This record gives sequence, structure tokens and C-alpha cells, in this order.
Amino acid sequence: MSTAPLRVLGISGSLRKGSFNTALLRAAIEIATNENLPLQFDVAEIRDIPLYDEDVRASGLPAAVQRFRDAISAADALLFVTPEYNYSVPGVLKNAIDWASRPPAQPFANKPVAIMGASGGMGGTMRAQYHLRQISVFLDMHIVNKPEVFVRNAQNIFDPHGKLTDEATRKVVLEQLRALIDWTRRIAHV
Amino acid sequence: MSTAPLRVLGISGSLRKGSFNTALLRAAIEIATNENLPLQFDVAEIRDIPLYDEDVRASGLPAAVQRFRDAISAADALLFVTPEYNYSVPGVLKNAIDWASRPPAQPFANKPVAIMGASGGMGGTMRAQYHLRQISVFLDMHIVNKPEVFVRNAQNIFDPHGKLTDEATRKVVLEQLRALIDWTRRIAHV
Amino acid sequence: MSTAPLRVLGISGSLRKGSFNTALLRAAIEIATNENLPLQFDVAEIRDIPLYDEDVRASGLPAAVQRFRDAISAADALLFVTPEYNYSVPGVLKNAIDWASRPPAQPFANKPVAIMGASGGMGGTMRAQYHLRQISVFLDMHIVNKPEVFVRNAQNIFDPHGKLTDEATRKVVLEQLRALIDWTRRIAHV
Amino acid sequence: MSTAPLRVLGISGSLRKGSFNTALLRAAIEIATNENLPLQFDVAEIRDIPLYDEDVRASGLPAAVQRFRDAISAADALLFVTPEYNYSVPGVLKNAIDWASRPPAQPFANKPVAIMGASGGMGGTMRAQYHLRQISVFLDMHIVNKPEVFVRNAQNIFDPHGKLTDEATRKVVLEQLRALIDWTRRIAHV
Repeated sequence: MSTAPLRVLGISGSLRKGSFNTALLRAAIEIATNENLPLQFDVAEIRDIPLYDEDVRASGLPAAVQRFRDAISAADALLFVTPEYNYSVPGVLKNAIDWASRPPAQPFANKPVAIMGASGGMGGTMRAQYHLRQISVFLDMHIVNKPEVFVRNAQNIFDPHGKLTDEATRKVVLEQLRALIDWTRRIAHV
Repeated sequence: MSTAPLRVLGISGSLRKGSFNTALLRAAIEIATNENLPLQFDVAEIRDIPLYDEDVRASGLPAAVQRFRDAISAADALLFVTPEYNYSVPGVLKNAIDWASRPPAQPFANKPVAIMGASGGMGGTMRAQYHLRQISVFLDMHIVNKPEVFVRNAQNIFDPHGKLTDEATRKVVLEQLRALIDWTRRIAHV
Repeated sequence: MSTAPLRVLGISGSLRKGSFNTALLRAAIEIATNENLPLQFDVAEIRDIPLYDEDVRASGLPAAVQRFRDAISAADALLFVTPEYNYSVPGVLKNAIDWASRPPAQPFANKPVAIMGASGGMGGTMRAQYHLRQISVFLDMHIVNKPEVFVRNAQNIFDPHGKLTDEATRKVVLEQLRALIDWTRRIAHV
Repeated sequence: MSTAPLRVLGISGSLRKGSFNTALLRAAIEIATNENLPLQFDVAEIRDIPLYDEDVRASGLPAAVQRFRDAISAADALLFVTPEYNYSVPGVLKNAIDWASRPPAQPFANKPVAIMGASGGMGGTMRAQYHLRQISVFLDMHIVNKPEVFVRNAQNIFDPHGKLTDEATRKVVLEQLRALIDWTRRIAHV
């Protein structure tokens, strides 16, 4: 078994600078570092991806899409950190996925994946995450079952510098990262 | 009971010029006209809506979003015609919904709605439509239950001019439009 | 508009005597009585319904199924109070629905419906309720959108006599019952 | 890598003797035999499992439940062949799952799983299968992504002896069985 760190691409579904979900992704990276997990993170940039239009695609992939696809391809595993908008995945995140999934060969296939999400309410992005799991069937991604990370009351668990201070949340994030490592090694035999 | 026609806003979830879904929306309008249904259609334009970003919204709604919201508000009923991308609603359509749903007061609330969709395969956008139905719970839209319109093998049912030629499909589209009229009158008492 | 009370059939998805969901149904009835809501409740009995088997059905509906169907038919509206088992509707409740939905003419069609549920965890039966909403599309039931009633930490909100003591929960239950009355009158014109 | 055959437990969600789904399960076994796949099938018997009642469970598992649990535990992989009733999993199948999932330690955890289904219409049990996939997240089962097996127009693809005669369907069944073998070996390292 290799001891090289796994390359994980972190993908936040929110563009807002003060996004709780982007903060949760940063927290996951900080926790992985603190705990010396064998993970090396890249963070996807989906802000410059245009609205999906097949007529545009037919004349060539936009540069931001190509970069996103390359980042996915280079990763051993993916970590989606998704808000829930209107009881589903944000259009912004789905649009990035739609672009990246188009021919030639889509890069999501066969990737081990973990999903987290944060919301201000009590659902913790649960509804968005099950939609993302259905999407993953088509994309042939393999999603970690447990633990699921549903971060509730997000406004109360980060300090003013955006650091995740809630110990129970830090613990479940750590557990999911460990589960992602195990799952990635298990299905990829790396 | 009023005899004024109902104003329906048609919303296609695809930006592609040759889109089967946009063609299906045109077919619905053509069928309504042919059958003298008491419907007056507007067609939403979502192409110029930017990616949703709460930081942008905080400084004012983009003009394309405002137009989309106004069109929704002005309608008695909505007709979504949605492709299925990656087993869910297209990011482009979801992004438009995400923008339109934000404060001040979201315009979807209480609207009677019908959903159609066309795909090249056998699912007929079924998976996307159930996601859209879940989204509608949050948005407080009231969706026609029956008939559902799942248009399969879309490449075979339009002629080269984009006219819907399949009689069975024309029939179920007509039935759904009639169901939308009945449902709108029933819940709006118009 | 009639001033006769609406007849509501309450359906608990749990057979356990100490069920939180059956207690929640009793609480809804108690609240309706306390508040003098124009509702008259019956409670469905699904305990004696056998496992669905089409070969059995072909030789006649079991008596318990016939009684359940008759109770549905007699109701102006339905109130499902459902646990969540394994992230979906309990098999026991789904089995009762499967029996009642079979020919001759299924009694769920066109009924106004509200859904509540209680769980020991944080999801509040959310996942089960969205599955039940998808089921309702086929059955042509019309489900109240808001407020949704997701009762969390159910072990902490009933007193030892099974009385619902949590004020926030009592309030949302009351609001949903009022929404069901409005919705029933709206779609049934009663 | 072991050359011993994988033990697969086949679970049909229908009790009807002439069930298309039970016929599809038999067809899968026949195809595996014809193709000399390294699979050894058992078939679950869920007919005698009572309605789930926690009060009953507290006094001991019914014998039929214990047998079902033992059969799951003994299997290397599971094959669900499920009808779709009312746009979801049959209550009969969900009830069997609910029983088998209860403490002590639930036997579904970590099992590789494939799902097939047959219906008379055009959906091919698609809606039921996505519900079963969501159920599997809680149960910690690992479901084959592709190929999905949605058998449509089931009344036309079996001969009077219940033999699956449609070549395209036989092919996709075979492909899914091969995918289940690969997936089982991949995640179980057997």
C-alpha cells in the first residue's frame, strides 16, 4: 500500500465569499493538516464557468471548464461541500457538474467521493445531498455512505475568523475524512 | 368564472438553439393555439442570468433576474419544460430558480405549475422532474399530478422544422395543458 | 361555504403501542379539539392488513383492507403521521397504501393531504416524507406544502402520559392543521 | 484472488406467483448458469415475515426474519429484483428490510449490491430503484452504479413458461451480473 498522500479535490458549491460551505471546506483542510492525515488538497474554482450551452460546447470547452475537468482528473478523490438551495443542489454547482460531465470522456467516473454541507437551518443540506447522490449514479462516482456530514445552525459554529469551533462538528468531519481515505484505498487498491 | 385567458409563463431549461425541450415548449404553444385553449403564453428568457452569487445579489438584482421575476409574478401559471442532465434538473434552470427565489418576496409562491420534459433516452426526464417537484415544496408551487409528460426518443418525434409530429405525444401535451387550466381555476378560483 | 367540520382520517405509520408517531397523531387531535378547529377525526387501523399479494387480491379484498379503503373514501382529507425507517416510509405504511391503491378505483385520488412525522434524531422523518410526496404523485393526492412538520428529538417532547408538551411543536402542528383546512376548502370548494 | 464462486442472495420484492420480477430473478440465475459465471445463488423467502412491530421485536425475532437475516449474512453480495408500486419500493419488500435492519447488528452493512426491476410500463421501476438507493445509504450497502437494469413492457419479454426471451434484456442482465462480480471483488478484496 502506497504511503503517498491522496490528492483530494475540494469543491464548494457556493460563490459567496463568506460562505459557510467554503468555510467548512477550509475547516476540513485545516483538520486534515492538524491530524496529519495523508491527504493533499486542491480547491476547485468554479466561479468562471459559464452557463452550460451545448452550442457553446460544440465549439470548444471554455478554459474554466477545462481547468475544472483537469483538476477532477488529477484527483484521487473528490470532496463536495454543498449548500442547499430550494431543497436541492445549487444551480451553480450543478452547472459546473453539467459542463464537466460532457464528452469527451467525463472525469467523474470511478472517483471515490465524500459529501458535506452546511446550512443555517435544521436540515443540514440533507435534501441537496440525496440529490447529489442520485446524480452520482449517472456519473459513476462512488460516495462514502457514513458518516454523513449535515452541519446545522452554521451561523453558530464558526468564529469571526471563519474557524470551525464546534467540537462535535470537527469530530464528524474528521471521521468522514478518515472514511474517505479508507474508501479510496479500498476501491482503488492504492 | 372569468373567461379571460390564463397567462402561462413557459420556461425551457435548455439554452441550446436546437433544444428538444424548447421545441416541446413551442409545440405546447402551437397545440394550445390549434385547440383554442384559453391560454396566453409568454416565454421566459434565462440566458442572461448570471451564476448565483449572494455577494452580487446584496448589491442589487441583475436586470435579467428582475425580468424573470417579473414574468413569473405576472403569470397565472407556469409551465416548466426541462431536460434531464446527469439525472437531475439542469444547472442552468436551477440557477435561474435560485436567483428568482431570493428575497424580497419570491414570486413562485402559490403558482399552479405543470412540468414536461424531453430526452433522447427512455427515462423521458423522469428523474429531473421528481427533483423539480421536491424543489417546488420549498417554493410553495402547486404542481399538476397527472398526466405526467415524459417525452422519450425525442430525436424521432420532431420533424426537421422542429414541429412535434408524434400524435401520442401531442395528445398527452394537450391533456396536460387542459389539466393545468382546470387546476389553475380550481386552486385560484379564477 | 359549509360550516360542517371536515372529516380527517389520521394514519399512523407505526404499530408500536408507545409510538411517538401515534402519540403525535393523538396530539394533533387534542390540539384540534382544544382550538375548536372544524375537524372531525377518524383514526385508521392498519394492523390487520396482510402483506400485499396480488394472488390474494384477485380472490377478494381482505376485510381490513376494505375497511381502510372505506375510511379513506369517507374522509374529506388525510393526515399521514409517519416514522422514518431506513431513510424511507415504513414498509407497514407502504404496504397499507399498496393494498388500498389497487383496483377497483383507488380512494386516494384527489384527496387533500397533510404529512407529519417524528423521529428520535435530527432529520425529523424528512427523508420519509419526500418519498411519501413522490408516492402521492401517482396516487393523485394533493399535499399541503407548508408548514412541514419534522418533529426531532421525539423522546424529549412528550410527557410520560404521551402528551405533547413542547410548545414550538404544538404551534407548528396547529399551523399545519389550519393549512390543511384552508387547502381542503380551496381545492374542494367546500 | 479466490476462485470460489460468490454467494449471491436474490431477493424478489413481489409475492405474486406469476411475478415478472420473480421471473427476472430466475432469468438472472439461468443466465449466470449458462454463462458459467462464478456465482452461487440463494433465493430469499420473505412471504412469512410479519408486519414490522417493535413491540413484537422486543420479545424476539420471528423465525422468518431470523432466516432472512441469516441468508443476508451468509451472502457475499445481494441482488434485489424489485417491482415499483405507487412510485416506490413495495411495502412488502420494505417491511422485510425494516425487520432485517433492526438490532442486533444489521446484516446489510458493507454488502455489495445490484438492483434490477421489471414493470409493465415505461419507467422500468426507475422510481423504486432510486428510493432503494437512498435506503441503502442508511444500511451502508454499496450498490453497483452501472449498468442499471430497467425492464420495461415486462408482459412482452417472457415466454409462457416465464423464460426471458428478449435478447437486449438478457444482455444487460448479464452485464450487471458481471459488474456485480467485479464490484464485489473490488470492494471486498476477495
